[in-house]
Amino acid sequence: MDGPNPPTFPTLSELEAVAATKVRPRVWGYIAGGAGDERTARSNERAFRQWVIRPRVLIDVSEVDLRTRLLGQRVAAPIFVAPMAYHGEVHPDGEAGVARACAEQSLLAVYSTLSSAPMEEIARVGPSGPRWFQLYVQPEFEANRRLIERAERAGFQALVVTVDVPVLAVRDRQEQGGFAIDATVPIGNGPGVLPPRRGPTRGGSTFRLGEAPSPTWKTIDELRSITRLPVVLKGILSREDARLAVTHGAAGIIVSNHGGRQLDGAPATLEVLPEIVEEAGSSLEVCVDGGVRRASDVLVALALGAHAVGIGRPVLWALAVDGERGVRRYLEMLTLETASALALAGRRTVGEVDSSLVAHREWM
Amino acid sequence: MDGPNPPTFPTLSELEAVAATKVRPRVWGYIAGGAGDERTARSNERAFRQWVIRPRVLIDVSEVDLRTRLLGQRVAAPIFVAPMAYHGEVHPDGEAGVARACAEQSLLAVYSTLSSAPMEEIARVGPSGPRWFQLYVQPEFEANRRLIERAERAGFQALVVTVDVPVLAVRDRQEQGGFAIDATVPIGNGPGVLPPRRGPTRGGSTFRLGEAPSPTWKTIDELRSITRLPVVLKGILSREDARLAVTHGAAGIIVSNHGGRQLDGAPATLEVLPEIVEEAGSSLEVCVDGGVRRASDVLVALALGAHAVGIGRPVLWALAVDGERGVRRYLEMLTLETASALALAGRRTVGEVDSSLVAHREWM
Amino acid sequence: MDGPNPPTFPTLSELEAVAATKVRPRVWGYIAGGAGDERTARSNERAFRQWVIRPRVLIDVSEVDLRTRLLGQRVAAPIFVAPMAYHGEVHPDGEAGVARACAEQSLLAVYSTLSSAPMEEIARVGPSGPRWFQLYVQPEFEANRRLIERAERAGFQALVVTVDVPVLAVRDRQEQGGFAIDATVPIGNGPGVLPPRRGPTRGGSTFRLGEAPSPTWKTIDELRSITRLPVVLKGILSREDARLAVTHGAAGIIVSNHGGRQLDGAPATLEVLPEIVEEAGSSLEVCVDGGVRRASDVLVALALGAHAVGIGRPVLWALAVDGERGVRRYLEMLTLETASALALAGRRTVGEVDSSLVAHREWM
Amino acid sequence: MDGPNPPTFPTLSELEAVAATKVRPRVWGYIAGGAGDERTARSNERAFRQWVIRPRVLIDVSEVDLRTRLLGQRVAAPIFVAPMAYHGEVHPDGEAGVARACAEQSLLAVYSTLSSAPMEEIARVGPSGPRWFQLYVQPEFEANRRLIERAERAGFQALVVTVDVPVLAVRDRQEQGGFAIDATVPIGNGPGVLPPRRGPTRGGSTFRLGEAPSPTWKTIDELRSITRLPVVLKGILSREDARLAVTHGAAGIIVSNHGGRQLDGAPATLEVLPEIVEEAGSSLEVCVDGGVRRASDVLVALALGAHAVGIGRPVLWALAVDGERGVRRYLEMLTLETASALALAGRRTVGEVDSSLVAHREWM
Repeated sequence: MDGPNPPTFPTLSELEAVAATKVRPRVWGYIAGGAGDERTARSNERAFRQWVIRPRVLIDVSEVDLRTRLLGQRVAAPIFVAPMAYHGEVHPDGEAGVARACAEQSLLAVYSTLSSAPMEEIARVGPSGPRWFQLYVQPEFEANRRLIERAERAGFQALVVTVDVPVLAVRDRQEQGGFAIDATVPIGNGPGVLPPRRGPTRGGSTFRLGEAPSPTWKTIDELRSITRLPVVLKGILSREDARLAVTHGAAGIIVSNHGGRQLDGAPATLEVLPEIVEEAGSSLEVCVDGGVRRASDVLVALALGAHAVGIGRPVLWALAVDGERGVRRYLEMLTLETASALALAGRRTVGEVDSSLVAHREWM
Repeated sequence: MDGPNPPTFPTLSELEAVAATKVRPRVWGYIAGGAGDERTARSNERAFRQWVIRPRVLIDVSEVDLRTRLLGQRVAAPIFVAPMAYHGEVHPDGEAGVARACAEQSLLAVYSTLSSAPMEEIARVGPSGPRWFQLYVQPEFEANRRLIERAERAGFQALVVTVDVPVLAVRDRQEQGGFAIDATVPIGNGPGVLPPRRGPTRGGSTFRLGEAPSPTWKTIDELRSITRLPVVLKGILSREDARLAVTHGAAGIIVSNHGGRQLDGAPATLEVLPEIVEEAGSSLEVCVDGGVRRASDVLVALALGAHAVGIGRPVLWALAVDGERGVRRYLEMLTLETASALALAGRRTVGEVDSSLVAHREWM
Repeated sequence: MDGPNPPTFPTLSELEAVAATKVRPRVWGYIAGGAGDERTARSNERAFRQWVIRPRVLIDVSEVDLRTRLLGQRVAAPIFVAPMAYHGEVHPDGEAGVARACAEQSLLAVYSTLSSAPMEEIARVGPSGPRWFQLYVQPEFEANRRLIERAERAGFQALVVTVDVPVLAVRDRQEQGGFAIDATVPIGNGPGVLPPRRGPTRGGSTFRLGEAPSPTWKTIDELRSITRLPVVLKGILSREDARLAVTHGAAGIIVSNHGGRQLDGAPATLEVLPEIVEEAGSSLEVCVDGGVRRASDVLVALALGAHAVGIGRPVLWALAVDGERGVRRYLEMLTLETASALALAGRRTVGEVDSSLVAHREWM
Repeated sequence: MDGPNPPTFPTLSELEAVAATKVRPRVWGYIAGGAGDERTARSNERAFRQWVIRPRVLIDVSEVDLRTRLLGQRVAAPIFVAPMAYHGEVHPDGEAGVARACAEQSLLAVYSTLSSAPMEEIARVGPSGPRWFQLYVQPEFEANRRLIERAERAGFQALVVTVDVPVLAVRDRQEQGGFAIDATVPIGNGPGVLPPRRGPTRGGSTFRLGEAPSPTWKTIDELRSITRLPVVLKGILSREDARLAVTHGAAGIIVSNHGGRQLDGAPATLEVLPEIVEEAGSSLEVCVDGGVRRASDVLVALALGAHAVGIGRPVLWALAVDGERGVRRYLEMLTLETASALALAGRRTVGEVDSSLVAHREWM
C-alpha cells in the first residue's frame, strides 16, 4: 500500500512477462508450470480461441451492470479469484493483499487450505469480502472438521472441496525449479494441516497414494453432514460426475483441471463446460476456471453457461508485480474490460448473456 | 509530391515492415494494435486463407474491367479506403494526400469524423473523388446535424455511421505505446467534435459509458430523417443486425470489426460475410473490411457476396512510407494485382465473380 | 562432368538450403519465389501432409518395377521434370545437363519455350530421352507454328500448352530480387520468342493484358490442327476445365498452379487432383506438379489418380548444387527412394497403386 | 552401477535434450532421425494430442495396480521396452543395463536381432525379466532357425517378427550423421547375423531389394512351424493385415511404424490402432509403439484398446544420460507417473481403462 505506483502497470498482454521477472525462478516454476509436459495447461487458453463472440449493435449500453449472485451472494462481477496455495511465496502481501483488493471491489475470492496466511487473518483484513474456503480433504476426518469450523467462524460462505487431487501430479517445471509442496513451505492454517501427497509410492507390486483411502462421494456426504455451508465441488470434468454432484447435494461445481496442474491430458475446461452445464446447470451453479485471461474469455464462458469464472495465475502475476496494489489494479482492469466487452457485445447485464452470443469455429 | 521517388517502393509483402520504420513508435502502436490481445485482428487475415480461388482457363481475358458502382456511383474498382482517424499523425500529407491519390484513380475513400484535415479541405483537393463521410455519433444530436450538413455541402455522397463503438475498447498495444484517442490529438473537423469515450467508468455498482445513451436504431432513424445522403452502417457482424439494417432503411452495410480494434473475440469479418449477404444482400449493398491485403483477398470477398472491400492499415502504411505518392503507388499496385488476379481466375469483369469462384477448406 | 564429386551431396532434406547458397540472390528470388505472398506456393507442399500412406506388409517386394507409360511412351518411373524457364541462369550446364541426366535414366523431361538452350541442342545431347515441349502461346499464331514444327523435327513427343499464364502474376520475391522475365534474359529458342506479358497495363478505364486476345479453347483447337503431337494442357485446376479438355481433344492434363507462381490463392494441386481425375481420368492422362518433394508425395499423387508427377524447383536446386551431375544424383535419389517406398508400402509396381493406398486426415 | 548419482536426473520433459549432449552426433543422428523428412516420426507424438482423458473423481484410488499380463505372462505395468538395435553404441551398459533395469522392475523388454550384446548375455544378467526376441528375418532360412533356437534356449518367451523392413528406408538425418547400418557395427548375436538391406539397387530396368524374396505370410507360417514360442508381428498398420495376422496364427500384433524410421508418410500408430483393435483385438493381443512419451500417452493407448505400449527412443535417451541407472530411473519415473495418472483419471487398475476414458478432438 505504501510506495509510489510503478510508472506504468503492464497491460494484460504484458502481465505474465513482467511478473516472471519479479519472482524467484523456483517460485516461478511453481506458479507457471503444469503437470507433465503441460498439454492441458496450454489447451485451457487455446480452447477459448475456438469461440467467437457475435456482437449486436445499436443497443443502448450506456449503463452496464456486471453484478450477479453466486450461491445467493451478491458480487460485483461474475469473476472470482480461484483458490491457489502459498500467496506469500509470491509477495509479502500474500492472501491479505488479495483479500483487501477483492473486498474493496466486492469480488469473490476462494482461499486455499494451503494459504500462507491463516484464514482468520484473511477474514479480518477483508471482512466484507465474499469469501469461500477451499478444502484439501485431510486424511484424518477430524482435521477436516476443525478446518471447516474455523472457516464457518471466520465468515467464509461456502466450502469448496477440491476433488482432483487424490495425489499431486508430476509437474516437470515445478520440479526443475526445485519447488516442493511439502512441510518446508509454511502453511498459514497451522502445522496440523497437510498438503496433498506428492505421488504414489511402490507398495509391493502395487502403488499406494496414501495410508487412508482417498476422498470419495461418501466423503462429500460426510462433509455436508458437518457443515451448514453450501458445498462446491472443484475439479469435475465430466457429465457423469456432474450428475453425481447433483445427487450428492452439491450446491455448485467449479469445472476445473487445476490449471493443467493435475492430470495432464485432461480436457480444457471450456471443452467440457457445455456437457456439465447441460447435465447439471439447472440443479446447481456451474463455474469454470482455467485459461481465463481476457474479457472475451469471461463472456465466452458465461455464454456457454458458466455462472462465473475463476482467475488463477493472473492474480499471482499481479501480486508479484505490485502486491496488493497490483491485484487491485488487475481486478479493476479485468472488470472494466469485461464491462466494456459486454457493452461492445450489445449486452447490458450478465443476465442478457446466453448461447446466442457465441459461435464455434474449428481454427485459430 | 516533391522529392525523388524512393529507389524501390516496397512490394505488398514488405510494406508493413517498411512502414514500421517510418513512424514514431507511439503512432505505430496506434496503427498496428488491436483490441485486447488481438485475436480478432489476427483472425481477419487468417480467415482469407480458408478459401481458395478456383481459376478457369482459356478464356479471353486480354481486357479486364474492374469498374463497379457503389450506391449508384461509378468507381474504378471494388476497392475503397476504409475510414481511419488521424492520417496527419502518420504523414504530413494526411487525408489530403489520400484524397488526391484516390480522386486521381477514381477510387472511393471514406473519411473519418476524426480526420486530421477538415472535411472541406479533403473535398477541395480531390473534388472529383468519390467520398463518403464516416460519422462517430456525437452525444449531442445537434452536433451530428452540423457535421452532416457540412458533409453534404462538401459533396460527400454517403453517410457511414459507425455502430461498433459505444465505447472505445481496451487496446493494449496502443496503450503500451502511449497513444490516447482524446482531446490532445487535433481533430480537423473542429474543436466541437468529440472522439468516442475511452471506456466505462464505475458509477456506483454499475458502469457508465457516457452521460447520454449510446446510439440505437432510433438514432439511425433520426439521422436518416435529417439527411438526403444514403446511410451505410459500419460494424455489423450478425445476420440479426443485417435484418434490422434493412428494416431501418440503410442503403448499405460495411461488415467490419473495426480492424480488430473494438470487441476482441469478435469474428473475422469474412466469417460472417456470407450470413449477412444471405440475409440482406438483395436489399442493400454489403461491403467488408478487415484483413484485406492482396488481390486474392479482394476476389474471395467479392465471391462471397461483397460489393467492395475496404482497405485500412495498408493505406496508412503506404502513407507512412511515402506520403501521397506512396498511397498512389499502393493503390495502383493493389488495383493492378486485382486486375491480374481476375484475369488469372478467368474472369473479365467484377460481375463475373460469383460463389463458383471459391471453395472452402479447413486448413492453412 | 569434370571435377571431383562434392564430398557429400546433400540429402533431399538439405537440398534446398544448400542450393540457396549456390546461386545469386537475384536468381534465387526467381526460383524460390511464388506469386503474391506465396499462399498457394506454401499450400502445395502442405496438402501432401493431409494424406497418409497405408502400407501392406509381408508381400514379396524383392523386385520393384517403377516403369510406366506416358502417352504411350515407356519411362523408367512416373516422375518427370516439369517445364521451367532459364536453366542456364542456375548453372552453365543448363537444360543440356538436365537432358543428359534424364536421358540416361529414361525419365521424361518437359522443356520450356523459355529454355536457355535451343530445343535442338536439348534434343541432340539426349537423343534417347523422352521429351515434351512446353509452349507459351505466342501472340502471333505463325510463331506458334514455327516453334511446334521445330519441336516435331527435334523429336519432342508431345506439346504441353501452358494455360495459366494469360499474364505473368505479381511475384513479390522475384521482384525484390530484381529478376525480370523479359528481353534481357536470353532465350535459347531464339530472339523471336516472346515471354508472357508482365502484367496488365491501364488502358483508359479498363486494363489490357496484351494487344492480341489471350489464348482460348479455340487456340487449343487451332494448335491441335497444326501438329501431329498429342496436346497436353498444363495449368488446369477445376473439374469444369478438365471436362473441356476432354471435349477439345487434349491427350493429357498437368494439374498445376505453376508452382504457386501464378494465381496466388489458387488451390494446392493435390486438393483438386481428385476432382479432375474423377472428371477426366478415364478419357485422358492426368499428371500433377507442385510441392512434390519426396517418395511419399509421389505415392500419394499416384494413389489419387495421377499418371505421373512433375518435379520443379528441386531439379533446379540439384542443378545449382552440382550441375548435370547434381541432377543425375538427385533423380537417382528420388527414384530409389520411390522404389523403396513402393516396396515398404507393399506394392511391386506402379499399377498396384490405387486409392486404397492412402487415407485422408485433417491435421499436420 | 558405480559412481555417484547425477545431481539431478532430468525430468521427462528434459530427457531428450540432455541425452542429445551425451552421445556422439553420429549416433544421435541414428537414434533421433526418422525416414525421409520425418513426417511420420513427428506425427506419432502429435496423434496423442488429439485425444483427451476424461477423468472421473471421488473414487478411492489410494491403491493403484498397474499389473497386467502379456501373452499370459505377468508384468508390472503395460509398458515395455520396444526393440532397438545397437544399445552399445549409446552407452557401454548396453542391453545388459536395460535388461537388469527391466528385470528388477518386472517390465517386459524386447531385444533386437541387432543387439550389441549377445542374447545369451542379456538373458544371464536379467534371468527373471520378461523378455521377447525380435527377429529380422534372415535371407537364409536356417539362420532364422538358429536364432530362434538360441532365443528359446535363452528363455525368451515370444518371437517378435518385424514385418516392416523388406528394405531399410532412406533416413536423411542418419545419413547426414554418417551412421550406417551395416557390417561395420558389431552385432552381439554373431557375425552370421545380417542387418536388413540398405535400400534397393537398380537391376536393369527394375529395382532389386535383395537376392532372396522378402518375407511373406508364408514366411510367418514357416517360422511358426519351427518354434514353440508365440509369434508377434511388429509393424502392422492396417485392418487388412491385422485380419491376416489372425488367420496366420499370430499371438499378437505390435502396431508400429518403426518409430517413423521406415515408410515416411505412414500413419501415426495411434491413428490406426482403433481399426486394428476392432479387427483383431478379440483374437490376439494388440500392442502399440511410436510417440509414447508420458503417462497420458499410455492411458490413451490403453483406452483405445492396446494391451501395452512400447517405449523406444526415451529408453535410449535414459541409457545415454546415465546407463543402466538412467534406464532404471526412467522406467521408475514413467511407471510412477502412469500410476499417478491412472489414479487421477479415477481408475485403480488397467482393467478399468476402456474407451469411456478418452474423447477425440480435432485441434492441438
